[in-house]
Amino acid sequence: MARSGRRRSTTSDTAGIRHERGAAPLRPPQAADDATGVSLPAPELGLRVIVEHVRPAVDQGRHAAKRVVGDVVHVRADIFADGHDVLAAVLLDRVVPRGGDAAAWRQTRLSVTAPGTDEWHASFSVDTPGWHEFAIVAWVDRFATWQRDLRARVGAHQDVAIELIEGGQLVREAGARAAQLGSTSPDAWWFEAHADLLCDTRAALTERLDLALSPQLAEAMFEYADRRQATHSEPVRVWVDRALARTGAWYEMFPRSAGDTAGRSATFAEAAARLADIAHLGFDVVYLPPIHPVGRSFRKGRNNALEAGPDDPGSPWAIGSEAGGHTAVDPALGTLDDFDAFNAEAGRLGLELALDLAWQCSPDHPWVREHPEWFRHRPDGTIRYAENPPKKYQDIYPLDFACAEWPSLWAALLEVTRFWLRRGVRIFRVDNPHTKSFGFWGWLIDQIHREDPGAIFLAEAFTRPAPMRYLAKVGFTQSYTYFTWRNTRAELEAYLTELTTTPMREYFRPNFFANTPDILHEYLQHGGRPAFEARLVLAATLSPSYGIYSGFELCENRAVRPGSEEYLDSEKYEIRPRDWHAPGNIRPLVQAVNRIRRDHPALQWNDTLRFCQTDNPELIAYAKVSAHGDDIVLVVVNLDPHHMQHGHVHVPSELMAVADDERWTAFDLLTGTPYTWRGAWNYVRLDPGIRQAHILALTRGQDDSAHGSHDGD
Amino acid sequence: MARSGRRRSTTSDTAGIRHERGAAPLRPPQAADDATGVSLPAPELGLRVIVEHVRPAVDQGRHAAKRVVGDVVHVRADIFADGHDVLAAVLLDRVVPRGGDAAAWRQTRLSVTAPGTDEWHASFSVDTPGWHEFAIVAWVDRFATWQRDLRARVGAHQDVAIELIEGGQLVREAGARAAQLGSTSPDAWWFEAHADLLCDTRAALTERLDLALSPQLAEAMFEYADRRQATHSEPVRVWVDRALARTGAWYEMFPRSAGDTAGRSATFAEAAARLADIAHLGFDVVYLPPIHPVGRSFRKGRNNALEAGPDDPGSPWAIGSEAGGHTAVDPALGTLDDFDAFNAEAGRLGLELALDLAWQCSPDHPWVREHPEWFRHRPDGTIRYAENPPKKYQDIYPLDFACAEWPSLWAALLEVTRFWLRRGVRIFRVDNPHTKSFGFWGWLIDQIHREDPGAIFLAEAFTRPAPMRYLAKVGFTQSYTYFTWRNTRAELEAYLTELTTTPMREYFRPNFFANTPDILHEYLQHGGRPAFEARLVLAATLSPSYGIYSGFELCENRAVRPGSEEYLDSEKYEIRPRDWHAPGNIRPLVQAVNRIRRDHPALQWNDTLRFCQTDNPELIAYAKVSAHGDDIVLVVVNLDPHHMQHGHVHVPSELMAVADDERWTAFDLLTGTPYTWRGAWNYVRLDPGIRQAHILALTRGQDDSAHGSHDGD
Repeated sequence: MARSGRRRSTTSDTAGIRHERGAAPLRPPQAADDATGVSLPAPELGLRVIVEHVRPAVDQGRHAAKRVVGDVVHVRADIFADGHDVLAAVLLDRVVPRGGDAAAWRQTRLSVTAPGTDEWHASFSVDTPGWHEFAIVAWVDRFATWQRDLRARVGAHQDVAIELIEGGQLVREAGARAAQLGSTSPDAWWFEAHADLLCDTRAALTERLDLALSPQLAEAMFEYADRRQATHSEPVRVWVDRALARTGAWYEMFPRSAGDTAGRSATFAEAAARLADIAHLGFDVVYLPPIHPVGRSFRKGRNNALEAGPDDPGSPWAIGSEAGGHTAVDPALGTLDDFDAFNAEAGRLGLELALDLAWQCSPDHPWVREHPEWFRHRPDGTIRYAENPPKKYQDIYPLDFACAEWPSLWAALLEVTRFWLRRGVRIFRVDNPHTKSFGFWGWLIDQIHREDPGAIFLAEAFTRPAPMRYLAKVGFTQSYTYFTWRNTRAELEAYLTELTTTPMREYFRPNFFANTPDILHEYLQHGGRPAFEARLVLAATLSPSYGIYSGFELCENRAVRPGSEEYLDSEKYEIRPRDWHAPGNIRPLVQAVNRIRRDHPALQWNDTLRFCQTDNPELIAYAKVSAHGDDIVLVVVNLDPHHMQHGHVHVPSELMAVADDERWTAFDLLTGTPYTWRGAWNYVRLDPGIRQAHILALTRGQDDSAHGSHDGD
Repeated sequence: MARSGRRRSTTSDTAGIRHERGAAPLRPPQAADDATGVSLPAPELGLRVIVEHVRPAVDQGRHAAKRVVGDVVHVRADIFADGHDVLAAVLLDRVVPRGGDAAAWRQTRLSVTAPGTDEWHASFSVDTPGWHEFAIVAWVDRFATWQRDLRARVGAHQDVAIELIEGGQLVREAGARAAQLGSTSPDAWWFEAHADLLCDTRAALTERLDLALSPQLAEAMFEYADRRQATHSEPVRVWVDRALARTGAWYEMFPRSAGDTAGRSATFAEAAARLADIAHLGFDVVYLPPIHPVGRSFRKGRNNALEAGPDDPGSPWAIGSEAGGHTAVDPALGTLDDFDAFNAEAGRLGLELALDLAWQCSPDHPWVREHPEWFRHRPDGTIRYAENPPKKYQDIYPLDFACAEWPSLWAALLEVTRFWLRRGVRIFRVDNPHTKSFGFWGWLIDQIHREDPGAIFLAEAFTRPAPMRYLAKVGFTQSYTYFTWRNTRAELEAYLTELTTTPMREYFRPNFFANTPDILHEYLQHGGRPAFEARLVLAATLSPSYGIYSGFELCENRAVRPGSEEYLDSEKYEIRPRDWHAPGNIRPLVQAVNRIRRDHPALQWNDTLRFCQTDNPELIAYAKVSAHGDDIVLVVVNLDPHHMQHGHVHVPSELMAVADDERWTAFDLLTGTPYTWRGAWNYVRLDPGIRQAHILALTRGQDDSAHGSHDGD
């Protein structure tokens, strides 16, 4: 903002400077060794270029941002220096080796995002799972500054004889740097020749100026720029997962319920027969609650009764019996070989298996006998069972992650995880991770990722926001969320806005389960089939990863008692065969939604989620766009499961710029119905008797078969 | 959010844990030495408590927040752990020594800001200028957890015999820790006795429970808590200035113009005669442009003419002649002794002197001869004068902060600053700091602060936001701002909101100059006296530090040419005696505003600034409250210098909760007129013919002499 002659005379004082330096970010100075002692400036203080707020980064680089293979990482930073010299900056990125040599840095030139600002940007793609890192190197570009000033001088018809000689010196110095890279470097000779011409007073001035201002010379000078005084940002890490870490449809099933006889546990072989149907419905992941032997001591009975009947199978989360612990399978399900066969069948059908990591033991778990030091003891010597005073859970012995022998306990838990990893299980749903120390998870996930960077960890942490976020920061791939308790339009918009527009978007990946064995929300209890339809569409389109727990597709909605979110006759405590084709099921909708998710990249990420206005608060509307912008999906859901709701939906111009009277097409992907819409505001009507939601592909122009009016049927 | 029996059975698994640990924030893990090598967990991973987002901090502690002596620093952090144990945390703070021993840490207990959240808070006061630091120590409070659980068990009438013994063990362990501090510690004996009673089965249960649950025992246990597994946050620095660093009224004057003869430079003695009047007007700081010998070579003439006349004094920023450089004074002003006398007179009047640091030289500066290595040279050997191609400023030689000899140059500039510091100058207005390297300023300010932590540096950096902010981050006490270019209500509200509600509030202190020798905004050029009144009130009440350049009180508003912000016949190039009592001056308003600023703590900081609604966009209204809340000031300004504007102003209930029909008093501090207002919306009328602003003290109740109606006169 230099404006006065007096100011200009000082603001230009770094033009054509000889040696660039760049200021490294300064930390608060240390206290002096004595009260008035002068310290000479440290060399790095001479660096002139400042690079700050390099992003994406979580908590200023303390934690890593997450991406998936194939992503383009858009890097931004504030880069500036004193004075008015032209700056240059490059983005460096590389894969962090899991051993062996570090990959070479790839270099991409950064450019200013908007003229007059100090924000620079560039991007790089990530093609392999694991740790990647990037850094920024920025310096004062002496030659570009010289060219800018020369252009101004020439424009003012000034004598530039001395400037050309100065430019020649700059080119000669570049030649010297080129020569250092190889005494016979042709570049060195090339620079020398051009330097000679710039300085050659017998040559035509126009020829010398054409060379001086040529982009070719500028490009070559950039290649051999003097970076000795460049500022290097601290490297920032990015964790890259495989695609399934961000996008997938999950199905939770209790294998023991897959048979046809109530009270008898199904085998893995019987459970395997269910897989084809689950694949047919379009799911990607099948998640099994614990498959290990179930304890007998203090076993819980049906509906969580304190006394178990002789035939009650007990909770799969009460892990361990004389038959084994976390590396064994329940004999009633079969053998490890049977498990392998089940896993193989899932793979054959294009399904991937997810197992449950529940770090706790029943009193009958072998570790209780073999490793009492891993448990807490009471003054009377007995092992402390789980409690939430005054409540007691005598069927569970918690492991003590902070016991004196914690390193051996942690190592044992790592070995359990590796045991299943080596059997081909690459997805782990982690039970209550927030009750085990954060340090443990950061370490375990890192260890497993060294063996398989494609391993996926889903955190089942229903707790306060800060610890939920922190589990994601220490390494969890995905997390359960508050989605089941967000049912109104205001609740959903506020929560999704937090997930997709705050720093959480960089590291916290939601997995929207519409129900779980623990959560049957009252909205589902009282909303009937339309409530299930609405929640399915919301979960599957608001989050790239979502899931249902078996029975959801049958609209099972009976709670154990009023006010409870627990299921009546919960599978947690008994074996529940089902008729998967029972009347009133929403299997066709589930199948359609999963098909649409696969066909439409817009639904496979959350980066572009935006909510749209409607004139009816019971109607929620939102849109997503694919990375290339060619796939635009608009979802409209009637949140009222009891009444027909209708109104108008606004499509913002950023999403699809249409003239007021322009006709275009909203194609309903659920029904295959093309609707002709006009302008930005259009009418929708959703009747629980007919359907609860539209999933619309928006396209310009008009579909010949389009319905002129939109009456919702 | 544990809800099912199954979940509860796992979420409670850390109750009554034996050894606390706490997770230190994790950085991205290092690459493994081999592709699948397991690393044993590092001990710090066992720490269970997480402490993150400790604030106030700038860029996560990379830079320091600023405060002034007497402030209370409100510290907040997110503190949490796995599981459901009760946590304890203390805030540590201390002065960072400028040599000698480190002060002891002061300890303050933190508490949760709001139940159910993980934000904790505490505060500490800062009473000395210089570096202070604070840190947080947090741990799992085993005894508090035990008490909470015991209370629940007793409430459920459970047998707590074993729990009491366990509690006794905890108390005994505390006794052992007390004993370690002194074998004969009475505390150790005290703990032993209480432990015995807790475990004494012959004692009455009620007595044992009363002791077990007593706050006294809890307090003692906190005193001797086991902190071996506590998490320690990284210390965060806070820089503390003296009060004048935040709050002060500045007056800029050219001492050479203080005489009575046009064309003849006044002496320091003559200039000293002006000081009494400036003190009388209520200013705190008198800022003098450079007082050094002015160069002759290429000296600029009147109105920045390229050719100076024989009697033209030249720009004071063209520093240096045969008479000396940055440590000399212009012979026309007098000697260093005369300067000292001038400074002494200022001090006698309660004024503090601010000098200009302009790191540049005229071609006649001794350094040009003595230290050519500190300047840039052209291929022909000549020293490079300042340029902004194609413009040339041959009267100025910039110093090259990045020259090969930069350490000796920096040391010389430090010595110049110390020279004036030791002559009693503690305030420095820095000319164009953004054209010298950031590293230099961070180093210079730190060096001076080691000698005098009360030294104040005002940055005159009119540049883009990022470098302006960064100068404040590296240590500048205050900064000039964009205030002169913010004239509409929307511009002012947006800019002040940025300064007072974004992270800038922690480190960037504005000094609102209403004009400068370089900036006569067109609002002042065309608005006449009412424009000056409006801008004075805005500057003085929107920012705790503000200033005017002499002539403002005379409403001088003639620009050198249309479209320019330069003054006609600028003092930068000539000597300008004035009639300080010329008709049309606004001296009484200046005096009143400065008096009001001193009387009202609400105006001495910006932490509570809030804008109020008005129903007329030409009326801007805002309020400030003192730290104790007992001083409430509401300012209303008519931004239209040409027309009467009237309308209603809304006083928000957070500021003063009044019933719709409640009568209260708005006392005009400028006129001494009490107005009776009723309810939240009240009428104001501001007529340029009469006055341009109200500065109102708001008080409950009614002033007997209050005007029933408010007609603005």
